[in-house]
Amino acid sequence: MSAYFKMIGPKRVVIDHVSPQIRGGESPFKRALGDRVHFRAHVYADSHDLIAVELQLRRAGPGPWHQLPMRAEGNDEFVVDYDPPEIGLYEYRVSGHIDHYLTWQEGFQAKLKAGQAVDLDLRIGAELLTEAAARTTGRAAVQLRKWASVMGDSEAPSEQRNRLALDASVIKAARAHPRLEFATTTSIALMLVERERATFSTWYEYFPRSCSDDERRHGTFTDAARRLPEIKRMGFNVVYFPPIHPIGRLHRKGRNNALVTQVDDVGSPWAVGAAEGGHKAVHPELGTLADFKGFLAEAGRYDIEVALDIAFQCAPDHPWVTEHPGWFKWRPDGTVQYAENPPKKYQDILPLDFECDDWEALWFELKSVFTFWIEQGVKIFRVDNPHTKSIEFWRWCILEIKKDHPEVIFLAEAFTRPKRKYGLAKAGFTHGYTYFTWRNTADQMRLYIEELTGSEARDYFWPNFWPNTPDILHEDLQNGNRATFIGRYVLAATLSSNIGIYGPAYEVLENKPYPGKEEYIDNEKYQLRAWDWNRRGHIKEEIARINRIRNEHPAFQRTFNIKFIATDNAHLIAYIKQNFNRTDQFIVVVNMDWNTRHYGTLQVPAEVLGFPVESKYRIKDLLDPDGREYVWRGGANYVDVTPAKSPAHIFQVLR
Amino acid sequence: MSAYFKMIGPKRVVIDHVSPQIRGGESPFKRALGDRVHFRAHVYADSHDLIAVELQLRRAGPGPWHQLPMRAEGNDEFVVDYDPPEIGLYEYRVSGHIDHYLTWQEGFQAKLKAGQAVDLDLRIGAELLTEAAARTTGRAAVQLRKWASVMGDSEAPSEQRNRLALDASVIKAARAHPRLEFATTTSIALMLVERERATFSTWYEYFPRSCSDDERRHGTFTDAARRLPEIKRMGFNVVYFPPIHPIGRLHRKGRNNALVTQVDDVGSPWAVGAAEGGHKAVHPELGTLADFKGFLAEAGRYDIEVALDIAFQCAPDHPWVTEHPGWFKWRPDGTVQYAENPPKKYQDILPLDFECDDWEALWFELKSVFTFWIEQGVKIFRVDNPHTKSIEFWRWCILEIKKDHPEVIFLAEAFTRPKRKYGLAKAGFTHGYTYFTWRNTADQMRLYIEELTGSEARDYFWPNFWPNTPDILHEDLQNGNRATFIGRYVLAATLSSNIGIYGPAYEVLENKPYPGKEEYIDNEKYQLRAWDWNRRGHIKEEIARINRIRNEHPAFQRTFNIKFIATDNAHLIAYIKQNFNRTDQFIVVVNMDWNTRHYGTLQVPAEVLGFPVESKYRIKDLLDPDGREYVWRGGANYVDVTPAKSPAHIFQVLR
Repeated sequence: MSAYFKMIGPKRVVIDHVSPQIRGGESPFKRALGDRVHFRAHVYADSHDLIAVELQLRRAGPGPWHQLPMRAEGNDEFVVDYDPPEIGLYEYRVSGHIDHYLTWQEGFQAKLKAGQAVDLDLRIGAELLTEAAARTTGRAAVQLRKWASVMGDSEAPSEQRNRLALDASVIKAARAHPRLEFATTTSIALMLVERERATFSTWYEYFPRSCSDDERRHGTFTDAARRLPEIKRMGFNVVYFPPIHPIGRLHRKGRNNALVTQVDDVGSPWAVGAAEGGHKAVHPELGTLADFKGFLAEAGRYDIEVALDIAFQCAPDHPWVTEHPGWFKWRPDGTVQYAENPPKKYQDILPLDFECDDWEALWFELKSVFTFWIEQGVKIFRVDNPHTKSIEFWRWCILEIKKDHPEVIFLAEAFTRPKRKYGLAKAGFTHGYTYFTWRNTADQMRLYIEELTGSEARDYFWPNFWPNTPDILHEDLQNGNRATFIGRYVLAATLSSNIGIYGPAYEVLENKPYPGKEEYIDNEKYQLRAWDWNRRGHIKEEIARINRIRNEHPAFQRTFNIKFIATDNAHLIAYIKQNFNRTDQFIVVVNMDWNTRHYGTLQVPAEVLGFPVESKYRIKDLLDPDGREYVWRGGANYVDVTPAKSPAHIFQVLR
Repeated sequence: MSAYFKMIGPKRVVIDHVSPQIRGGESPFKRALGDRVHFRAHVYADSHDLIAVELQLRRAGPGPWHQLPMRAEGNDEFVVDYDPPEIGLYEYRVSGHIDHYLTWQEGFQAKLKAGQAVDLDLRIGAELLTEAAARTTGRAAVQLRKWASVMGDSEAPSEQRNRLALDASVIKAARAHPRLEFATTTSIALMLVERERATFSTWYEYFPRSCSDDERRHGTFTDAARRLPEIKRMGFNVVYFPPIHPIGRLHRKGRNNALVTQVDDVGSPWAVGAAEGGHKAVHPELGTLADFKGFLAEAGRYDIEVALDIAFQCAPDHPWVTEHPGWFKWRPDGTVQYAENPPKKYQDILPLDFECDDWEALWFELKSVFTFWIEQGVKIFRVDNPHTKSIEFWRWCILEIKKDHPEVIFLAEAFTRPKRKYGLAKAGFTHGYTYFTWRNTADQMRLYIEELTGSEARDYFWPNFWPNTPDILHEDLQNGNRATFIGRYVLAATLSSNIGIYGPAYEVLENKPYPGKEEYIDNEKYQLRAWDWNRRGHIKEEIARINRIRNEHPAFQRTFNIKFIATDNAHLIAYIKQNFNRTDQFIVVVNMDWNTRHYGTLQVPAEVLGFPVESKYRIKDLLDPDGREYVWRGGANYVDVTPAKSPAHIFQVLR
């Protein structure tokens, strides 16, 4: 007889369609702490016996299971709602068994009601109690046996016997010790419960080295800290730095990605590692590790967290190259082919070889880079090009780290094909960059948001919307005006609860491209910049206003609570955002034709707002400095958006 | 380091969403021999290396894998079509690995085209060839090494080296010995390939004991064989007998389910087992085992197969009760509670206890019942109330039998809740009874068929439609007329490729109910009947005509090739049936108000028929003895259905 036969043989309960569940439970589904989790499973058995079904949960690891009875909802579906008590990686599974005692008890009750003889039934019930007693010890066993001896005694007074059979505490005690030998239990599945800032964050990326306000002086963490009050005033709660490690000297890149450097060229921060150290060292020109920790502390005073950029690649003079040559793929001429992410070529960095013989040591060292920075106080990492590294490595690395440090957030910088992006999310990345930048009409944007929020992906892929990055200056911005910058920020900020900009380029409307490319010219990636942080026309007040709306309104602190509103003008995109209990509701309208006034009617589904179809309600434009109010009603409502004044309305629904 | 880490560590290819696949492959999906299977998987790796993906298949068991390369279809989806060569239970899985050689070769080609230096590349290619040689032996290894020595020799003529690098046979040989150490392979999944009669069958159920034409003489297999020519003439290809085993005498049921028997009462065939034997014996009054085999042979001459009814339950005098008392659940008073399938009570049978200590022996004995009858020549079983027996038992029993006898067909008689019905199909049952009987309006019927054919269920649940059974005489028939019987048969016969009737009750329009029940009065389940096989008003000619249409037209030999047609009359149901390549197409229209003429317009989607929207085409009513033809066109077409003449049209589309 096969082991399989032995294993499944006597089971009578079948469990199917456990949800939520990603890849059969192998990948975690995600929820934010504070959000209720709705579990569901299809469970049935043969015959007409009753079944008991429970959800079993625990923090990942070998601990005991927390047991939650699942409620029959009809049609063989069982459900339970769960409020995770804390963040972390959880394991869960569903277990079902035949509820012999309850099956017996219901049969007994029916016979008693029908006035039939029940002596035999009581004797069977007594047998079940005796069996339950054998499955436990101590006082519980003694009590069960005592009940059994009375219930099974045909000579005992029938009222006493019946009373025991109907007694809720007897039923409870008997059911607490069921025959579990034949129970069916699903394989273990994973759930990640994330903290609030994982589901609601507003990032500000900047280069500390450009914070000296002098293009000839390398900025430091101390210089960067001087920007914090202004960043706080604009309403951001995460600042993110490009890699802060020593920058390689070999094959260093010059200004504008030049292959030949000038003597004062500072190189790309993504060319990690030099004589001064690698991924656990700090670039001396930025300061010391102590200076960095000082910056962390200073940011903490503003309730701003710091995200570090982890780029697993090495400048040719990174210490690993000599200390661990086995981690690289050497060619017959004794060189390593530089890294590429087509069409981009990174002549200044060497890729790691995830298939090398020494891969285990490599993996552990890479994981230790994260734990090193976690020990310094960093809780957020932006990971550079994760899709050019083994996805199974990420799965292992992130889930291992999450076990000890569930508060850590990982943002995947993977601009790659959809399945691979989603694959990284399934591997555990908290956030992923998106195609937001390349959705430039109302229709494209709506379809993309519907994919992100309406498909299975919502259970694992949490988008992070960026109107710009040091790598990406979209044509829309290159050719755009002030309204473009404000409008794209409104879109990001109201469509996704996690967003970010690369500043000060964004708020000062920097948009000069490297000719023919989707990139900035004189890019900070390769040189120091001295910014006029208050350049004429800047949109800092608008960003501050938009971020204040986000910070004050839970409707914008989740991504998936969105409903689109039909419009009769193809340039207008409109949607409802609301919190779970609809105490905080907004209607957002953006005119995506940044140069032209557009108006039209919105078909607002009043029932989504929780209003009777024909009722009137007030709305107030919180983006409008004058806070104008309007009276709307169910059905068609008129809107008018003039980009020269403001490319969007953010109407709060006042009721 | 955990075993898990060791196992998944070095893999770089990710495989997801393999389809078709039921319950992660644990349950087989079904296909008919001759129908192409379309496999699909999402497969991707990190970085920009090319990957090779293959489907691996084999007949279930430890044999070698048959390997089929999967084709990249874009968007990280890989596909392959497969024509199973024979029926049986198959195992399949998807495997993917980095295609190092092809990745190198494409890079080489690009460099060569761009006129760049390729000496270093050729030396790398030579290394890859050497590695491939190390993974094989004999002439292949020698050849690979020979190529490597030329390709890697910087002194060799560059034309010769380049030619080798571009040579298709070198590429093929190198790719044939890839580095599989890091390959990703999914867990094994199951597929059932069924024979033609599993997907297209027309059943005629009758009681051999009622074939003597004399209510006082018990009919025999020989009597039953005399009905075969007529059954053949009506176009059936399966005859199905209720259980043919000795019938219990203890607690035998009387006529009309009476609890007290008269001396000449014959009892229910489902009360299996008596002194003469159990599930492997033949009821002496029907004949001997030899007689039964004679009947099988006779049926075979008409190309009619014989289905047996297997009911795993025991009359109290079944030999198992004394030989294997451990297979029953004994109560404190030394009795066994009789079987029930609420609201039905079976006082004449005892259920088996699938949770008994001796369950392994019980399971093997039950399986041996099937193999015993298979050895006698039976290939089709109708299983009585399978949902009151362990579903895991069925899964094991059916899949084990299928390994040796893939031709065997199992019909599940489970009138139970949907998930349990589907659960039995996933456990391996070939066919299942359905709710067809209880869908009595056009709308109900359409919704039900859409569920069966449009959901995931189509991959495992193959319906078998029965307008009546000895257990079920629906009100629609009780109150019906001749058109009802013809109309319900047309519906069954054109909506499902597997159907059956209980005769001669059906074709002679028997519809007298037991008062207040959905059952026949004077039911053959409890007594002998002498039928007038040619009772006035019978519909044998209509049945023969409908079955001839089914037998001659592949459009009706599959269930899932259906498209509904919108009508403007709620009593009319209309649909297109077509074979896969649309060489055989029908439009069926049924008026489900059996007493009243109805007419209306059908919106026929010409594109489904493969016609330009406005083209004309001829149709011919094959149900009409005069075979009237009409000219239709895309869009609205008029139909008129007068039940008094015929409740349906079966229009062949002639083009």
